[in-house]
Amino acid sequence: MIFEEKTVESKKLFEGRIIDLRVETVEFPDGKTAYRELVDHPGGVGILALTKDGKIPLVRQFRKPIEKAIWEIPAGKLDKNEEPKMCGIRELKEETGYIAKEIVSLGFLYPSPGFANEVTHIFFAKGLEKGEVSPDEDEYLDIEEFSVDDVRKMILNNEINDAKSVIAFLKCDAMNLFER
Amino acid sequence: MIFEEKTVESKKLFEGRIIDLRVETVEFPDGKTAYRELVDHPGGVGILALTKDGKIPLVRQFRKPIEKAIWEIPAGKLDKNEEPKMCGIRELKEETGYIAKEIVSLGFLYPSPGFANEVTHIFFAKGLEKGEVSPDEDEYLDIEEFSVDDVRKMILNNEINDAKSVIAFLKCDAMNLFER
Repeated sequence: MIFEEKTVESKKLFEGRIIDLRVETVEFPDGKTAYRELVDHPGGVGILALTKDGKIPLVRQFRKPIEKAIWEIPAGKLDKNEEPKMCGIRELKEETGYIAKEIVSLGFLYPSPGFANEVTHIFFAKGLEKGEVSPDEDEYLDIEEFSVDDVRKMILNNEINDAKSVIAFLKCDAMNLFER
Repeated sequence: MIFEEKTVESKKLFEGRIIDLRVETVEFPDGKTAYRELVDHPGGVGILALTKDGKIPLVRQFRKPIEKAIWEIPAGKLDKNEEPKMCGIRELKEETGYIAKEIVSLGFLYPSPGFANEVTHIFFAKGLEKGEVSPDEDEYLDIEEFSVDDVRKMILNNEINDAKSVIAFLKCDAMNLFER
């Protein structure tokens, strides 16, 4: 039996540049209450691209929260009122220089629905044309292109652990999008 | 080129029951600095279980951050010093009543490496025996068992969006673990 959780008290503790933090007291229909810690996040986009010669560009970036550099698909946060697909095209271009001509939605994911409202939209792109790279000011990236087989191995060997990247690849693979 | 980000200033803004919040100034080797908002999370475990008659138990739970109830594999946060595999067995038992006899690691994922240090360990369990359900005090759950084909459809139709659940299923599927 599912009980909706009605907010009976909400306190914003932090308003940041990227995330906000709230604590809330919630009430179930049976009158019981519970305490929740909630992070508000603008959401983002990840884009798995396949080049004309069948390679997947991945970016490797130092991630401060986990104190290491990891491989991920090109991705970024949604700008205010930005359409997810346009954000994906923009981030792919900025990080890899590729301009995507054909784009398919792979749906979206909730990375951490227990404490964050973040939604990540994922896309598959092909028909790529090469343009100029233009990373963000404070974004230092390695870019490398991998074969589909290599990315599959890196995922199954647990060398790629970023949620959006794993989901984008495995969904494409399950839908045979790499073979068309 | 990857630059490590060295912390030059760190301020803890919130210490919660589940998450903590820090803001940091980080420095790159070239002397440039950047600002980071970081959430500390204890990490968790998700466990995809296959019953003797080939069904996968999923739990549906209201998630306050996204204001809706979603289907997920049984999961929970790691208790302090708890071994991930033991946590998976415990959560599966508490939420579904099943006692797992055979457990395989499916690796781990970083749900949101851009702002959170959360790590989610995922497991595949079979050889299940039925025990007693014992959910947490403030946990209200629906439990239902789905066929492997139905879960695959729900994922590809974007009806299951929880990151750990999608990854656990698609990794099992890619490794043919449902067929053995």
